[in-house]
Amino acid sequence: MNNFIFQNPTKLVFGEGQIAQLAKLIPADKHVMMTYGGGSIHKNGIYDQVKKALCNHQVSEFGGIEPNPEYETLMRCVAECKEKNIDFLLAVGGGSVIDGTKFIATAIKWDGEPWDFLLRPLPTGQAVPLATVLTIPATGSEMNSGAVISRRARKEKLCFFNEACFPQFSILDPTAIYSLPQKQVANGIIDTFVHVMEQYLTYPNNARVQEYWAEGILKTLIEVAPKLMVNQKDYDTCANFMYSATMALNGFIAMGVAQDWATHMIGQEITAFHGLDHGVTLAIVYPGVLKIMREEKRDMLLRYAEQVWGINSGAEEDRIDQAIACTEDFFQSLGVKIHLSDYNIGDDTIAEIASRFAKKKVALGEKQTITPERIVEILNQVK
Amino acid sequence: MNNFIFQNPTKLVFGEGQIAQLAKLIPADKHVMMTYGGGSIHKNGIYDQVKKALCNHQVSEFGGIEPNPEYETLMRCVAECKEKNIDFLLAVGGGSVIDGTKFIATAIKWDGEPWDFLLRPLPTGQAVPLATVLTIPATGSEMNSGAVISRRARKEKLCFFNEACFPQFSILDPTAIYSLPQKQVANGIIDTFVHVMEQYLTYPNNARVQEYWAEGILKTLIEVAPKLMVNQKDYDTCANFMYSATMALNGFIAMGVAQDWATHMIGQEITAFHGLDHGVTLAIVYPGVLKIMREEKRDMLLRYAEQVWGINSGAEEDRIDQAIACTEDFFQSLGVKIHLSDYNIGDDTIAEIASRFAKKKVALGEKQTITPERIVEILNQVK
Repeated sequence: MNNFIFQNPTKLVFGEGQIAQLAKLIPADKHVMMTYGGGSIHKNGIYDQVKKALCNHQVSEFGGIEPNPEYETLMRCVAECKEKNIDFLLAVGGGSVIDGTKFIATAIKWDGEPWDFLLRPLPTGQAVPLATVLTIPATGSEMNSGAVISRRARKEKLCFFNEACFPQFSILDPTAIYSLPQKQVANGIIDTFVHVMEQYLTYPNNARVQEYWAEGILKTLIEVAPKLMVNQKDYDTCANFMYSATMALNGFIAMGVAQDWATHMIGQEITAFHGLDHGVTLAIVYPGVLKIMREEKRDMLLRYAEQVWGINSGAEEDRIDQAIACTEDFFQSLGVKIHLSDYNIGDDTIAEIASRFAKKKVALGEKQTITPERIVEILNQVK
Repeated sequence: MNNFIFQNPTKLVFGEGQIAQLAKLIPADKHVMMTYGGGSIHKNGIYDQVKKALCNHQVSEFGGIEPNPEYETLMRCVAECKEKNIDFLLAVGGGSVIDGTKFIATAIKWDGEPWDFLLRPLPTGQAVPLATVLTIPATGSEMNSGAVISRRARKEKLCFFNEACFPQFSILDPTAIYSLPQKQVANGIIDTFVHVMEQYLTYPNNARVQEYWAEGILKTLIEVAPKLMVNQKDYDTCANFMYSATMALNGFIAMGVAQDWATHMIGQEITAFHGLDHGVTLAIVYPGVLKIMREEKRDMLLRYAEQVWGINSGAEEDRIDQAIACTEDFFQSLGVKIHLSDYNIGDDTIAEIASRFAKKKVALGEKQTITPERIVEILNQVK
């Protein structure tokens, strides 16, 4: 087990009906900016629940934060918050709204051009206090300090971390899943699954509890996914999924272990170039990473095969093949196509992505052995 | 899954050599009271490491906090802290020192008789800031807000919770285990194991991740225990044990599930009357609880048998019998005797304990079905 420092101050408020707690959770003297996305919260009743809970607070609103939240949009909100002296941000939405709100919270307190803090590590950790009402389980942003922001004019999608961006609290009401489009549920399951894999399927770290915990989330997802595909309105199934998504990326399974994140880095580039959903990019890229990094990941692939998929007999190579096939089948069982050609993405994009990483001079993966050349191999595997 | 609210702000600083971080972790202007126990930290070098790290801080010391920390002792420290205007407490020790320090931190800020806040829920959450350097993995006190305090003159051992008593940080250096008496390692393994069971082995809560996580800690303990019994100086084994102990009682596996705690409540009374080690009382009482509560716990006993001990064939009754026998064998494999008669405890104590709970009019267990009569049955099982 590696040395580590861990801290996660976010308060989780979990369960049906918990949105009503907002009245107590946000100090009465705050001027709240409520941020949200395309307006689905108007249809599913969450907007009304939030407004009702905050009827005695001063609340402004900023809607229209898009999937893969856009710098230009967010900067408009930053200007509005400054003008109105907003001192509390409440993100009501999924990962895009929450990530965008973290950017807004940081940019308000930032002197100079905000895009800068995505290009280099944040020197300070200032932010306007923020909290969330989660409507889509997927990114885990409701209980961590990170965010991913897009700037379409530059075809860039970059992430930043700011300790002051841990939400003060996050309300997780599993009934929010009832009315989600099935595609968002599928993407959320894939995103959660790959979040766990990025922290688990590296090399043995002799961190036993962390391994079991990662496997526990993966097995839960494999159990709830087929149920969710046929019925999105079973409370306990929704609760187990929503809980899994938060636990997958709040640092709990990351303590003292190596981390990969190559799939996310490559996937983000596909979104930057072609606008694909984040979850879809992961379902495409991850099988390619497993195939090309097979030797480096051998020990953990064998453990994954046995502990998660119950594959414990046969030759090692066969077990690994089966585990990778199970992973591909799992993604496809969610109705997601897992080849670049399904999305008309070809060699030109592969070359552009590789050249971007070459320019940045970064190698990816838990041992930084995924060079631009290997990125090409990975993407060729999933053409 | 039940609705829940969760928050745990403690920062974990984990690994060999991390005690040196103290210099940065405690603000330079604080007057620190360093609390500790019987002096083993003088022998194993931890005292010197702490003093060296804090050489530029103003540090006072209070040693001699005993196992099952005693009200009278702690009140002497409270007086000293008030006199010296102490504004930061650093507990260097195991659960007893940390629990005692939480009492001190709360009592300093408490108007009136401090024993009162053990007799009823704390109305406010004030405390002097505290942090810990953990030397014995066992109680989990390094990452929660609870504490158990004894008052021998009254034969009482009571617990309290204070949100302001979450340690600001806890340093966990697994090498602290190298020089522990084997008895303390055994007690710590049992304490950790039963902490998990109290939050896991109740009735099905449809909380899949939480179940897998509880099982992950149990399996880790079963793996490291025999290794620790023959060699206390393997770093990774010690790290996995120390990590397990903290994760067992920091709220991570408690979210949204029922909890038992009958064994702890009964065990505390045995300690109050006869001074037995906390871990020993758990090893005695827990098999009795499983036997008497067998029907109420049937579903989870079957799951425990399969997931933790690999018992998945045969009649249900046989599987449950085997799981209980495995639990008893596990405790005994640590060199602990698990019958009351081994400690010369007889019917009179059983009657006294039952009568105490009868007077308090409390029933124990996840469904409050363990009446004083059933406490007698439980203790008769383990005579």
